Amino acid sequence: MRYAYLGPEGTFTEAAVAALTRSRAGEVQLVPCASIGASLAAVRDGAADRAVVPIESSVEGIVTATVDDLASGADVLLQAETRLPIEFALLAREGTALADVKTVGGHPQAEGQCRRWLAGSLPGREWVPCPSNAEAARRVGEGSLDAALASASTAARYGLTVLVPDVHDRSNAMTRFVEVARPGSLPAPTGADRTSLVAFLAQDHAGALMEILTEFAVRGVNLTTIQSRPTGDGLGSYFFFIDCEGHIDDGRVGEAMMGLRRVCGAVRFLGSYPRSDGGRTQVRPGTSDPEFAEAAAWLARLRYAR
Amino acid sequence: MRYAYLGPEGTFTEAAVAALTRSRAGEVQLVPCASIGASLAAVRDGAADRAVVPIESSVEGIVTATVDDLASGADVLLQAETRLPIEFALLAREGTALADVKTVGGHPQAEGQCRRWLAGSLPGREWVPCPSNAEAARRVGEGSLDAALASASTAARYGLTVLVPDVHDRSNAMTRFVEVARPGSLPAPTGADRTSLVAFLAQDHAGALMEILTEFAVRGVNLTTIQSRPTGDGLGSYFFFIDCEGHIDDGRVGEAMMGLRRVCGAVRFLGSYPRSDGGRTQVRPGTSDPEFAEAAAWLARLRYAR
Amino acid sequence: MRYAYLGPEGTFTEAAVAALTRSRAGEVQLVPCASIGASLAAVRDGAADRAVVPIESSVEGIVTATVDDLASGADVLLQAETRLPIEFALLAREGTALADVKTVGGHPQAEGQCRRWLAGSLPGREWVPCPSNAEAARRVGEGSLDAALASASTAARYGLTVLVPDVHDRSNAMTRFVEVARPGSLPAPTGADRTSLVAFLAQDHAGALMEILTEFAVRGVNLTTIQSRPTGDGLGSYFFFIDCEGHIDDGRVGEAMMGLRRVCGAVRFLGSYPRSDGGRTQVRPGTSDPEFAEAAAWLARLRYAR
Amino acid sequence: MRYAYLGPEGTFTEAAVAALTRSRAGEVQLVPCASIGASLAAVRDGAADRAVVPIESSVEGIVTATVDDLASGADVLLQAETRLPIEFALLAREGTALADVKTVGGHPQAEGQCRRWLAGSLPGREWVPCPSNAEAARRVGEGSLDAALASASTAARYGLTVLVPDVHDRSNAMTRFVEVARPGSLPAPTGADRTSLVAFLAQDHAGALMEILTEFAVRGVNLTTIQSRPTGDGLGSYFFFIDCEGHIDDGRVGEAMMGLRRVCGAVRFLGSYPRSDGGRTQVRPGTSDPEFAEAAAWLARLRYAR
Repeated sequence: MRYAYLGPEGTFTEAAVAALTRSRAGEVQLVPCASIGASLAAVRDGAADRAVVPIESSVEGIVTATVDDLASGADVLLQAETRLPIEFALLAREGTALADVKTVGGHPQAEGQCRRWLAGSLPGREWVPCPSNAEAARRVGEGSLDAALASASTAARYGLTVLVPDVHDRSNAMTRFVEVARPGSLPAPTGADRTSLVAFLAQDHAGALMEILTEFAVRGVNLTTIQSRPTGDGLGSYFFFIDCEGHIDDGRVGEAMMGLRRVCGAVRFLGSYPRSDGGRTQVRPGTSDPEFAEAAAWLARLRYAR
Repeated sequence: MRYAYLGPEGTFTEAAVAALTRSRAGEVQLVPCASIGASLAAVRDGAADRAVVPIESSVEGIVTATVDDLASGADVLLQAETRLPIEFALLAREGTALADVKTVGGHPQAEGQCRRWLAGSLPGREWVPCPSNAEAARRVGEGSLDAALASASTAARYGLTVLVPDVHDRSNAMTRFVEVARPGSLPAPTGADRTSLVAFLAQDHAGALMEILTEFAVRGVNLTTIQSRPTGDGLGSYFFFIDCEGHIDDGRVGEAMMGLRRVCGAVRFLGSYPRSDGGRTQVRPGTSDPEFAEAAAWLARLRYAR
Repeated sequence: MRYAYLGPEGTFTEAAVAALTRSRAGEVQLVPCASIGASLAAVRDGAADRAVVPIESSVEGIVTATVDDLASGADVLLQAETRLPIEFALLAREGTALADVKTVGGHPQAEGQCRRWLAGSLPGREWVPCPSNAEAARRVGEGSLDAALASASTAARYGLTVLVPDVHDRSNAMTRFVEVARPGSLPAPTGADRTSLVAFLAQDHAGALMEILTEFAVRGVNLTTIQSRPTGDGLGSYFFFIDCEGHIDDGRVGEAMMGLRRVCGAVRFLGSYPRSDGGRTQVRPGTSDPEFAEAAAWLARLRYAR
Repeated sequence: MRYAYLGPEGTFTEAAVAALTRSRAGEVQLVPCASIGASLAAVRDGAADRAVVPIESSVEGIVTATVDDLASGADVLLQAETRLPIEFALLAREGTALADVKTVGGHPQAEGQCRRWLAGSLPGREWVPCPSNAEAARRVGEGSLDAALASASTAARYGLTVLVPDVHDRSNAMTRFVEVARPGSLPAPTGADRTSLVAFLAQDHAGALMEILTEFAVRGVNLTTIQSRPTGDGLGSYFFFIDCEGHIDDGRVGEAMMGLRRVCGAVRFLGSYPRSDGGRTQVRPGTSDPEFAEAAAWLARLRYAR
């Protein structure tokens, strides 16, 4: 199994691949890519079997590059998720003092997650956004940057030392990563699943968001994430990225998705897969699968007993 | 075809039977009954093929004897409806003057529909409730009452004259009647149908009514009547009688009924039948049968393409 | 204090007057009236200081004669409520056997509450509706009826005996009575109050009922009764009688009433008064009076600090 | 009046300052800042009288650096908004051919808005994120970058030429900018206003978003933007940035804000100011200021006439 991910070696995403493939590490072949888009393209065009990409962080929210790509390219299906704590370190070349650091690099998300620390501890520094934290570390190694915000585990790979360990604005920051495949592979329900989808409005109108929420609420489906993204067609034109509890095979999730399909301009199903946060699906009375089945049988009896 | 109805001859209900069977009058055999309950019992036990009963009046609202009986006895299915203007006359024996009238009889609904007229024109009279207006006329004929509020057409049958024609508090008063059969006979959809049902709450709680309304609203099904009735189990314990637009074969009506079935303690389907008021079913975008079918096919493709 | 009520002596309503005036029985002067309408008219025109009328029964639902009269006549204000168990007895003249009873009388509500018992125990009898149960007992005493369904306590007054005690279809049947005054007397809040009102729709449209419910729900006001009544202007044209928890002086009740006033054609406030069922007002977080006051102060600071 | 903005000279934000101060250009003193955060800090600490910052783009959605800063720092009040078309050009040094371009710089938003163009026209190039587009142009001028995505008007300032004019993925892309002041200055209502605020949930629960939407919907207030942002306290913990139609002085907006204040953990008012998109406030029947005033007077009469 070839796994595409945001490289180079040492990124948080590589750690996510390891977490997602722990039980079958021997079968995994890593395919580092230059960007999230390149990782997803590798799966879509068959250069890889799976891609692992970050989808949400507790500091920056949904990862827009991932969500926009999932919403617009060829269909794919999420297979699994994992969540990792975000632990940055300030890496530099041997002998560098904090006072020597004039330029610091890292992924833009790293800046977002360490903004206060940077302002407090390195007030005069220039921030240099890089495609990944590991790439920033590589640049420190080659001398074009003074320091990088990256995983401490990256230091050895690029011949650096940890100048400051445990850099962050908030402890307990987490990033959620998902494993992506081409269509045709839908994980079985486990009772603790998450379903992801994208909904495009039929036309913008006051109340469209409420309509979408109601389609889920009336069938007792809890949302865990809902976030708007601009479609690019003008200020105020949005689509919605939605995560809900449950599996597409669940009666209540299926009926909610059909409702969404009818009231929205378009709906893209991104997958149903086991959730990694230990939560189980909340099932309100009247919305379990046996209750859906009983009601369907009752309706059929009424309709056809004529 | 034997038609049970609230007799004796000359009642408004007999006129409703005539209106409902106009095209096949030759096949109709009238079975007058002593009460609404007796009419429905005649259908249920096979003594008649159909019953015609009043179900709603523009003055008194739903006819509680009918609704309570439909909600609690053996299952029946409504087949058709008709609506008749309500036109009362004050009937008396030849030679009676208005000033001579001390006692006036009629069905309690007649009193409700002529209350102001009675207070204004016959201020000192005693009101004598009777099982039907025609029965009140009969009693006037036999001398035990001075006058009756009944259909003018009843006068001749009981040897009475019309003392005051056109008695009512409001013009344009209407009563809706339904034709009732044993189960097994569900009229085909026409595009201008009404569906009637009864919903018993799972347990009383603030918000139960809103839940019921939402099950219909989210599928775009318009209600034409919703009225609570006590279950008899204590103050504040109610069931709901509901009329909605559309036919049980319609996707949106069927799904709303399944939703109701899941959130209510019990639901009794009373029938889908052509409406008599000339209205057609309003179908909101996203809730037509083709849209329901397309969404179901989409879901099936997503679920089974694995 | 003169109390108008549905007489003659011995009615359930007289018992309700006694229950409502227990602590000041010496000041009460009874004014028996021929009907609910006459009782309310007595208060409106000054012939009495108070009227006591039944407003809801656990068997028959809201008392339509009361609600329609409160909704349409001159303004009045409810002052208090009480609830009484409904306990019928079959009363007859000394020496009457059950087999002798051919005619039974009582108020139509009595028939509704004992329908099954009558069908089972007196299958061949004729039911004679009377203006009140006490009036039926009086007629038994004078010989024009064989038996009456009335309170057992009425027997002695009319020289009758209790042929069958404890007649009913359901035990625990209750009737709720209200005390009515002319405007100008609004009981103080107690923390366990009920507010009654009548709402007329601006225009009938699908969704009007949901709008009304939402005005209450969004402010956390629980409804204890909501029932539609025809306005008389045509089939499907209704007004709503509403009881809710709380007092008009409560922030959440006042704001809900203002919302209703804005979305309805007309709203009639019928009063706020202590409830008699032992329940206290449920106050959801965010809807208490201090929270309403704090939010109003916050808004004022934002608006005027310019 | 000193205006802080994201510099250096030539940024889109500088054009927004010009658009917002057209009628009083002579009074404006420009205070270029290194970042959005620095611009807002300049207003908060008194180094500037106003800040102009981008708040939403039709391509990238809300500008998170702006919204997060407005939500968390000292209170400020928005005074005005303007919207500008986004028009990029590819700038390079005289004599550069497209084939020579190996490194391209610009603000990360520029990359987001030109991603497809970059992939199609400069497939092998390295993207170098810069603090602003103008800074990227400056670096091209000094030779450390080959090309920059920036406003064509920037070319002359840094001695560059326009290699490709009119670069974008979508035409009609727009950015909305707001003018920010310290509290104490609330623009008067105009009938075509926008109100901005931030709502923090009391506690995360399924249905919190629906509650927030309902507080606005029940008072007829249309939302123009609602977007969640992570609070940073864990995956799934969010606050909401909200734009609605109308002014805090409007009855319906004020009542909705009080409702939000009661159901949310905290609400921060960001301001009411004239909208720049030509739209007027939609006022649903029952939600105009006169209707709010009439309902309040009605309630006062009922409450105090005792």
